[in-house]
Amino acid sequence: MPSIKLADIPTTAPKKADKEQIKEEMQTILKDLDELQNLLYAEHKHSLLVVLQGMDASGKDGVVRDVFGTMNPMGVVVTPFKAPTAQEMDHDFLWRIHQHAPGKGTIQVFNRSHYEDVLVQRVHKWVDDDVITKRFGAINDFEKLLRDHNSTHILKFYLHVSQGAQMARLEERTQDPRKMWKYNEKDFAEAKLFKKYQKAYEDVFKECNKIPWYIVPADHNWYKEYFIAKTVRDTLKSLKMKFPKLPKVKNNEDVKP
Amino acid sequence: MPSIKLADIPTTAPKKADKEQIKEEMQTILKDLDELQNLLYAEHKHSLLVVLQGMDASGKDGVVRDVFGTMNPMGVVVTPFKAPTAQEMDHDFLWRIHQHAPGKGTIQVFNRSHYEDVLVQRVHKWVDDDVITKRFGAINDFEKLLRDHNSTHILKFYLHVSQGAQMARLEERTQDPRKMWKYNEKDFAEAKLFKKYQKAYEDVFKECNKIPWYIVPADHNWYKEYFIAKTVRDTLKSLKMKFPKLPKVKNNEDVKP
Repeated sequence: MPSIKLADIPTTAPKKADKEQIKEEMQTILKDLDELQNLLYAEHKHSLLVVLQGMDASGKDGVVRDVFGTMNPMGVVVTPFKAPTAQEMDHDFLWRIHQHAPGKGTIQVFNRSHYEDVLVQRVHKWVDDDVITKRFGAINDFEKLLRDHNSTHILKFYLHVSQGAQMARLEERTQDPRKMWKYNEKDFAEAKLFKKYQKAYEDVFKECNKIPWYIVPADHNWYKEYFIAKTVRDTLKSLKMKFPKLPKVKNNEDVKP
Repeated sequence: MPSIKLADIPTTAPKKADKEQIKEEMQTILKDLDELQNLLYAEHKHSLLVVLQGMDASGKDGVVRDVFGTMNPMGVVVTPFKAPTAQEMDHDFLWRIHQHAPGKGTIQVFNRSHYEDVLVQRVHKWVDDDVITKRFGAINDFEKLLRDHNSTHILKFYLHVSQGAQMARLEERTQDPRKMWKYNEKDFAEAKLFKKYQKAYEDVFKECNKIPWYIVPADHNWYKEYFIAKTVRDTLKSLKMKFPKLPKVKNNEDVKP
């Protein structure tokens, strides 16, 4: 991936995208996803790791609900990563992440991820750049481990919102009684660091690109969710999965009550 | 570490080693270890990972009991790695290992380890050499992660027994009523693969040497335990640990019932 300037990339749906048409197509995609997830589970060979990253209010929770919430929860696990606990801080930064790596046949969604350790910690200068550089290397090694040693397919999405859309959504949290629970008194202070976060993300895209990033225009929820659902569907389809054949059926004689 | 031929390395205590003198020195070392482990726990900065590898009956359990069993179990954790469970098999081979990486201030002893995945699996040809090569790389990345991102000091010991000593100990398990529980019907079949295991170990020493291996002469238990205890003691000593100073004591006024 060549150097990326987030400011040059649109945060809105492409002009040619027709909202009504896409909403219709979305129904087909969600049906496909349900089928493909069932097949993934049945075949028990591959696994899928979906990494959702983005600024506050970029719509990660919405993706979890509207894209992954329609599948069978037996094979779909969502793990949010918040501030680390004391026990987690006693270990390397990937320790708590690795525990939630997907097992064969399952889809694991990370709502925030190991990337926070090279984003929030960097923007706030909690660690120096030498540590950040080492972490980039460790992240690349870690993703390679999952890919090469457990057939884990990794999809990394950056939910790309404009500063205006972010601010409007944060304001909404202070007004809408159904959204107030999401309000955090630090949100507006963090929002002021928007450009610093974008810069830190640009470095992530440059340093941790052995498994590519998808930059998702995220100002319009309908487009963002379509983009991600379609990418997941196409990825699962490309695996050419097959239902396992029936094992040799035992003679009834073998089944003794 | 240059290429190693295990057949050329003695399995017995050096001739100059005086058993009585070493047993006496061992008492001092164990006292030092107890102090140093307490300091490690109190300082809460470093951690120590001890990897014990060796053929069946090479005396790993004895090391656990006689070297690590004398320290405070609050800060010493021993984890044996046996055949992986179904859940563990659904993940990459380092998944179950990473969960047991030591937290700051603790000593973690692996009784067998991630190295089994490039030893027993290789000798039995359960995986091909391409997978083994990839695993060597993943192991190096993993040990680097622990070292660089959690101040984990890693000591890797190979308990080097002769084929004769191994066979005598396996025989003992069939005779001594206190040792029969250790007998496994596969032991003698595995013992026939002694040379193949040695060859697989030699490759491990060559491919995974960024953190060095200690080859421990292990035919004499007193010498083997002394060697390991001394190495652990010297390693902990080299960390120049200090007890944390008293934090600012609050005025009694602040403590209100």
